[in-house]
Amino acid sequence: MSPTQKLADLFGEFPGIGPRQAERFVYFLLRKNAAYRRALALALADLGRMVAQCGFCGRHFTAPGGRSDARAGAARLCAICADEGRDRARLMVIEKDVDLENVEKSGGFRGRYFVLGGLIAPPERAPEERIRIRPLCECVRNAAAKDALSEVVLALSPTTSGEHTMHYVRDALQPLAQEYGFRIAALGRGLSTGLELEYSDLETLKHAVENRK
Amino acid sequence: MSPTQKLADLFGEFPGIGPRQAERFVYFLLRKNAAYRRALALALADLGRMVAQCGFCGRHFTAPGGRSDARAGAARLCAICADEGRDRARLMVIEKDVDLENVEKSGGFRGRYFVLGGLIAPPERAPEERIRIRPLCECVRNAAAKDALSEVVLALSPTTSGEHTMHYVRDALQPLAQEYGFRIAALGRGLSTGLELEYSDLETLKHAVENRK
Amino acid sequence: MSPTQKLADLFGEFPGIGPRQAERFVYFLLRKNAAYRRALALALADLGRMVAQCGFCGRHFTAPGGRSDARAGAARLCAICADEGRDRARLMVIEKDVDLENVEKSGGFRGRYFVLGGLIAPPERAPEERIRIRPLCECVRNAAAKDALSEVVLALSPTTSGEHTMHYVRDALQPLAQEYGFRIAALGRGLSTGLELEYSDLETLKHAVENRK
Amino acid sequence: MSPTQKLADLFGEFPGIGPRQAERFVYFLLRKNAAYRRALALALADLGRMVAQCGFCGRHFTAPGGRSDARAGAARLCAICADEGRDRARLMVIEKDVDLENVEKSGGFRGRYFVLGGLIAPPERAPEERIRIRPLCECVRNAAAKDALSEVVLALSPTTSGEHTMHYVRDALQPLAQEYGFRIAALGRGLSTGLELEYSDLETLKHAVENRK
Repeated sequence: MSPTQKLADLFGEFPGIGPRQAERFVYFLLRKNAAYRRALALALADLGRMVAQCGFCGRHFTAPGGRSDARAGAARLCAICADEGRDRARLMVIEKDVDLENVEKSGGFRGRYFVLGGLIAPPERAPEERIRIRPLCECVRNAAAKDALSEVVLALSPTTSGEHTMHYVRDALQPLAQEYGFRIAALGRGLSTGLELEYSDLETLKHAVENRK
Repeated sequence: MSPTQKLADLFGEFPGIGPRQAERFVYFLLRKNAAYRRALALALADLGRMVAQCGFCGRHFTAPGGRSDARAGAARLCAICADEGRDRARLMVIEKDVDLENVEKSGGFRGRYFVLGGLIAPPERAPEERIRIRPLCECVRNAAAKDALSEVVLALSPTTSGEHTMHYVRDALQPLAQEYGFRIAALGRGLSTGLELEYSDLETLKHAVENRK
Repeated sequence: MSPTQKLADLFGEFPGIGPRQAERFVYFLLRKNAAYRRALALALADLGRMVAQCGFCGRHFTAPGGRSDARAGAARLCAICADEGRDRARLMVIEKDVDLENVEKSGGFRGRYFVLGGLIAPPERAPEERIRIRPLCECVRNAAAKDALSEVVLALSPTTSGEHTMHYVRDALQPLAQEYGFRIAALGRGLSTGLELEYSDLETLKHAVENRK
Repeated sequence: MSPTQKLADLFGEFPGIGPRQAERFVYFLLRKNAAYRRALALALADLGRMVAQCGFCGRHFTAPGGRSDARAGAARLCAICADEGRDRARLMVIEKDVDLENVEKSGGFRGRYFVLGGLIAPPERAPEERIRIRPLCECVRNAAAKDALSEVVLALSPTTSGEHTMHYVRDALQPLAQEYGFRIAALGRGLSTGLELEYSDLETLKHAVENRK
């Protein structure tokens, strides 16, 4: 296989990129100068060398020593989980890294996070293989035992699979919530910025009326 | 002007309809049989004859006797405002008729409504001519004096002009709120059904975290 | 049924209009003044009264006396078909009225038209009931016998059903073409104005290369 | 700057990729395994090492020895230009590599190509710096002198800048065309596959009627 075809195939796996745009990426790189291509290859290698998965929340992050620096027995922590100033009584369960980044940028949450790694759709056979539900239960149990956990916030998308996953996670955490006395909350529902009332669905309007303040 | 051109011009004023689609409407009507065109003309005439504006909330509605039935001194009321079972202690301020219908369909509100008739954009010269702010103040004063009003809910779109209008209405109602002791609330903000977390703006995420429950 | 619901149902049959936009049309009409509604009802009635179908090409058109003016035995003709200056040796077969109007506006054709009234999709049972193929054959035979027809141009969309219909019409006209010695042509294929070469399909590119000049 | 930010910045230069999708690419790569990232970096390095610019048509292509193999005095040729079986009497002028690939895939052209490298917009100051007009003239002169050139096909997009560029190139080639007796043609215009007649612009309809066959 030619390097152009090989590269097009790899770009074709990028999220939202079809074979046609993958090809355009290759043409773009062919026209670009060598310095740009070298910088891109270098950044990719750096990413590979410096990426690590946080031992607490499970998200991927870049760190000076990367994977290789992980000493035996000592899981590496991302900047948020390592931050002593975070509120350890609150844990937010989130689908994926980018959602975590967005909530963090919004500035509304000061607790810690846990990345579920996906959502489950209704007829899922083995949900525990699709999402990190067992690590979540273990993480919650540890946090409850050690850090006086007071609240777990389920921050999943209000879509069909998001809501199904919230039910599933809530059921799995319920016994722990009773045992350790923490609350399970969900993100608030209502009007989203910029969306005209006229185009809001009835469920959202109902939530917006209920949650008026 | 030909009847086709005249009709195309009139359809061109319909919301969201450009000259091209207006023309397609005319072609559609030309192909349709006479019975359909007659039914359409009849429904239009009925609408004209039977439409009335509610003396309380200000929305347009159809009523057996239409405008002509309005006796001197007795303003006609729409079905919601005439309903004795509605909660008179609550008033929802809404931009336009279709928003009122949608909130009503959502089933979350049992009070009465007031249609503002529009929104105002920041550099508006004479807001009192663009929106029904004076009738609103009068309506609120009457309701407060007569019906022990406890809450006015501002249910405007969370857009730039919607938020500007909410500030303006809130300022106008504040003195009455203090005089009569009612609360001014706004619709709740948060995640809208079906919208993925990843594509929610930061302000909405912040509201969603704050309004978790 | 209320006049608003009845009107919304009728608008819901308009091309490209769903139930939601149909409702918005009704609200728009409720807010509009009585004069506008009267003008619309009048234009509709005029359309109904003044519409006629051309006895030659079959398109609908408006004429002072409308249908009622058609005397026994004398089919009414639209402005194009009645125009003595049109080239009677050329006939263009077209799907629908709006296509005819567009070709006419383009100024590239000086012959006469015939409106087929639709397209047929591959597994069609009774094509002769879906499109006006029999009237077309009769029209072509008459024109060939009377006006020395030299060319029939099939001007249907280059879509799957358009191409299928072109094959079907070509097959139906072939015997007449041989009997009377006229040519059957199709609209030219190639690059469309404004479309970037990069986004043109391969078939179109092939036509464009073949038809270069 | 972190490797993630650096990578996001580089992806942000990809055609059609904004900062948000660039970030999603980085998250995607973080979740992907190391083998995938290595394959991507390797394919990029290969691309850099094996890319060469064709000494005749000017497009970029990958070749075993890449740039380094180019011996002094001997320009490397791409597979098409090196193919003895191509019709040397025909030259197609094209905007960019991807257009060349598409025309080639369409199978309609058996001559050789010349990549102009861009288009010029009407108020361009120094067109000869934006597009490869001088190399084109030189290439055409050589081909005309050596290979009995009979036709130059201008295959640029039928957009405003495409048509402006076609005029400019035509003017530049005209003296050579007269001197050597070759024809300057443009790609054929007409209906594009899949586009409904109703939505075709008038200019395209006019071309389609003129080019009927």
